[in-house]
Amino acid sequence: MKIGFYQFRPLFGKTKSNLSKIIKALHNVDADLIVLPELALTGYNFSGREEAVALGEDPEQSMAVAALTQLCRQQDLHIVIGFAEKKQDKLFNSALLIGANGLVHTYRKIHLFNEEKNCFDPGDTPLALQEVKGTKIGMMICFDWVFPEVCRSLALQGAHIICHPSNLVLNYCQQTMLSRCLENSVFAVTTNRFGSDRRPHGEVRFTGKSQIVAPKGKLLHRALSQRQALFITEIDPVQAEDKSMTALNDLFADRRPEFYSVLTACE
Amino acid sequence: MKIGFYQFRPLFGKTKSNLSKIIKALHNVDADLIVLPELALTGYNFSGREEAVALGEDPEQSMAVAALTQLCRQQDLHIVIGFAEKKQDKLFNSALLIGANGLVHTYRKIHLFNEEKNCFDPGDTPLALQEVKGTKIGMMICFDWVFPEVCRSLALQGAHIICHPSNLVLNYCQQTMLSRCLENSVFAVTTNRFGSDRRPHGEVRFTGKSQIVAPKGKLLHRALSQRQALFITEIDPVQAEDKSMTALNDLFADRRPEFYSVLTACE
Repeated sequence: MKIGFYQFRPLFGKTKSNLSKIIKALHNVDADLIVLPELALTGYNFSGREEAVALGEDPEQSMAVAALTQLCRQQDLHIVIGFAEKKQDKLFNSALLIGANGLVHTYRKIHLFNEEKNCFDPGDTPLALQEVKGTKIGMMICFDWVFPEVCRSLALQGAHIICHPSNLVLNYCQQTMLSRCLENSVFAVTTNRFGSDRRPHGEVRFTGKSQIVAPKGKLLHRALSQRQALFITEIDPVQAEDKSMTALNDLFADRRPEFYSVLTACE
Repeated sequence: MKIGFYQFRPLFGKTKSNLSKIIKALHNVDADLIVLPELALTGYNFSGREEAVALGEDPEQSMAVAALTQLCRQQDLHIVIGFAEKKQDKLFNSALLIGANGLVHTYRKIHLFNEEKNCFDPGDTPLALQEVKGTKIGMMICFDWVFPEVCRSLALQGAHIICHPSNLVLNYCQQTMLSRCLENSVFAVTTNRFGSDRRPHGEVRFTGKSQIVAPKGKLLHRALSQRQALFITEIDPVQAEDKSMTALNDLFADRRPEFYSVLTACE
């Protein structure tokens, strides 16, 4: 299975030109699954909810989703893309899985970062898996990385690959994703953007360094910080089904959930 | 609060000389809490359960525990030490918290590593906290590190410091503990041994590099791989009560346990 990422610099509010850039970059790529950054079409640094709502779209009625579907159909490709998702009076920071027949699944970010809380509604979709050509993928978005429960929940359900659209502004995530892939024995594609969103109300800078990590926490590739990068590599997703650490240890069979009850205690 | 570790090379089966080494090393140290390696008195590489049982002791009747208690009383110190704990017909790979009045608490390793499964019974004590001079400490042992649920469960209960006696044979743990301290905003003292246990049935080598990590995943100190090391540093445990990541993010308040139910599902 050929998986990859496209790290680029979306221009704030320029949905059409960002879409064109993506379509041009992915034209004729030899890949099965490409992960794009969080909020790849709209940009990130909204002045507030009003502006975010104005730029958000319903995926069912989005020309961008239609165009990406066409690309997927032509190239037998699946795409995961961060998307400002408008649904009735709600706005979610979402990741869409798009294939040859259109939208396959929407994940709505459950852990919003900083000012996102003033723009988006908290996600309401479960941490669930989707299938891409027989491979099980789980989606999470950016700041979800800091909560070990997210990768863990996806991996325990059988995820081979974690698709992780991001707009990272800090430097902690990339290193921690090595631990996530080690402790869960999964692949992860973290696609970050680079550049900055400079707006009248302030500037947000992004850290690039998109990466693909294999089980055992092995870094397969990490992009530079401030460069556009299209990277594709072939992996064997079945590697993620091997949870052994030693002859007598299995990362999942050795878990003792009867000792973990505080993790799911709701106040 | 002054916390530290003593990284040394226990000699297999030489309980008395290992104890002497510890007592000599900790004589007159200026510290409140010292963490020692896993199985610090017996060594690690047992030929099987029979040998482990022969070397194990009931802490209530152990001369070593009495001697360490005396040390704690003389120096107003608490010690966490890995201990082969015999209780009736059971044998546990345990960590003892010892203070001026003797044994305070016993944690029995819940995730046994490799051949330990042929020597020890799986731990049966909950992941719970103890107080040392008003600071809340949680104990875990070596391979527990790979299960994010362990640090998380201790931190969610309010641990300031994770005390982590270890006999690490791989190199993954030290890096991952930076992530554990970042995602949970806690301190962690990982005390490893160095050297090897060479026995007729085989040799096990240990990786040293004991370390203390602060909230935000900041490495305060890491020892060399194959050197004895006594390290003590002053920390402010209250730092671990600050779970903020940004003005609007709190690592614990932002958790959404209603999405994590798979973590505590028992088969």
